[in-house]
Amino acid sequence: LDEFELIQRFFNRAPADDSVLVGVGDDGAVLKPDAGRNLVTVIDTLVENVHFPSDLNASDIAFRAVAVNLSDIAAMGARPRWMTLALTLSHARDDWLQDFATGLFAAADEHNVSLVGGDTTRGEQIVITVQINGDIADGCQLTRSGAKPGDLVYVSGTVGDAAEGLAVLQARGVQNDDTEFLKARFCRPIARIELGNELVPLASAAIDLSDGLYSDIEKLISSSGVGAIVDCESIPLSGPLRRIAGDRALRSALTGGDDYELCFTASPKQEPSIHALAKALGLPITAIGRIREGSGVTCRQNGRDITFSHPGYRHF
Amino acid sequence: LDEFELIQRFFNRAPADDSVLVGVGDDGAVLKPDAGRNLVTVIDTLVENVHFPSDLNASDIAFRAVAVNLSDIAAMGARPRWMTLALTLSHARDDWLQDFATGLFAAADEHNVSLVGGDTTRGEQIVITVQINGDIADGCQLTRSGAKPGDLVYVSGTVGDAAEGLAVLQARGVQNDDTEFLKARFCRPIARIELGNELVPLASAAIDLSDGLYSDIEKLISSSGVGAIVDCESIPLSGPLRRIAGDRALRSALTGGDDYELCFTASPKQEPSIHALAKALGLPITAIGRIREGSGVTCRQNGRDITFSHPGYRHF
Repeated sequence: LDEFELIQRFFNRAPADDSVLVGVGDDGAVLKPDAGRNLVTVIDTLVENVHFPSDLNASDIAFRAVAVNLSDIAAMGARPRWMTLALTLSHARDDWLQDFATGLFAAADEHNVSLVGGDTTRGEQIVITVQINGDIADGCQLTRSGAKPGDLVYVSGTVGDAAEGLAVLQARGVQNDDTEFLKARFCRPIARIELGNELVPLASAAIDLSDGLYSDIEKLISSSGVGAIVDCESIPLSGPLRRIAGDRALRSALTGGDDYELCFTASPKQEPSIHALAKALGLPITAIGRIREGSGVTCRQNGRDITFSHPGYRHF
Repeated sequence: LDEFELIQRFFNRAPADDSVLVGVGDDGAVLKPDAGRNLVTVIDTLVENVHFPSDLNASDIAFRAVAVNLSDIAAMGARPRWMTLALTLSHARDDWLQDFATGLFAAADEHNVSLVGGDTTRGEQIVITVQINGDIADGCQLTRSGAKPGDLVYVSGTVGDAAEGLAVLQARGVQNDDTEFLKARFCRPIARIELGNELVPLASAAIDLSDGLYSDIEKLISSSGVGAIVDCESIPLSGPLRRIAGDRALRSALTGGDDYELCFTASPKQEPSIHALAKALGLPITAIGRIREGSGVTCRQNGRDITFSHPGYRHF
């Protein structure tokens, strides 16, 4: 199987719209941006045995690789448009590639994202880099750096599920509705594109949750030059997480990664709008703390400050 | 060393121009395109022990990772603007990262390309994916698909040097001016950006030479739905390649990869303009064959057709 055949068989599909002037199969893709909109570009890599177990099915691997990038686009308040794929494989197996392509396009199709190019290479382990170009109206991006003292800290959905889902996957124990829910939260993360778009006029800062709630809030406040107090009792935990993880649920929520929910800050005066938005999207949005002057994240539980020895994922 | 420190220390530099509205350090980069120009996006991966020997110095590895992408931009006739980097490493060593960053920015600075984002991950071997967004005036892209019967086939510079340079690197033999020239051709490929730009009104099709002249001409003619006759005696071989490779020189030129010269086709009536362009750029541009109806590459040497059993690099 040479690269050309591989691309033709698995990755050459009609683009989502006529903005793709030259797509897969040339030295580069040529894309027609909408006039007056800025470009938003993100890139994220998943490595076998680091970001996913090697026996995870190829469709889930690909879906995640796209979703984690869509999530970065969501955290910027942008619209995803065009995707490129750099795929390193130890061998090219037809059924694996077919499943991979199915998951890849499933994630992309939900947001009308076109695959416009890529590169396939040989390596010792699977390494998947997806890059997405999106766009946004001038001046409308959400960044990590706009949080102000007094702003509330919000999180969408529930947190901690994905980390527990990965643990469940690897333990290969009993299966029930709770374990299936948690596994799906790891395997099929839902990028909060629509939420990100709606937050543009409401939020002061935003980040997506990839490394863990505690660690990602730290990044947001560090970019903004502020501190935060997080009320642990307010952190939204799903029923399945509470039932499966028990006492570990809160730790999973604070330090487990891979949730791909959005964490954002907003002035208290936006509370009614955010409440209405949650209702309109059918997605819980929960206030879990408040921005303060200073630096660092303080977690309060039962009136006491608690700390974590290994907050979040360290890459090296 | 966490990802944040790593990026701050080695990869956070001022952008080349004010088009970078949000750069390294947020969930995504926000970039201001020039009005009316289309976007050209490319992505390419280099894997340790597949695309470069593991003892190659980090500065050369990074330079190549950027140059191979710049070369794709050149083959489209576009202008490179913004770069993202996905870097997978088995460990993070300060001196290696410092050298890597030096090579990366050296290659980018030559063309005023800004590093605007990236991702660093842990893995078993070094995998480097660079992605570049460039731009081009509407309708001006060079593609692989425009070659027409009767067009001449041209190649820039000399070919076969890089493959021989890699062999010399790995053999660790005698060093002289010839071996140093060939090694540099592998370690520091020069993307033909200016040539690509100037070819926009002259060439009917273009491709950059990454997998080998024979194999890359095959890709171009296959995209164009034509055949080609290549005159082996016309293929430009450097003095160092002739002296070091001897009888292997022609085979290296036809089947060795990594030259990152441009191969393009143009109507015979463009010959004077192409001649003038070569002179203006101080870069040899050589006619090596002709496009014909049909399909396939025919190589002629001393009036006989020759064939190659393993033409070019097969990825799997």
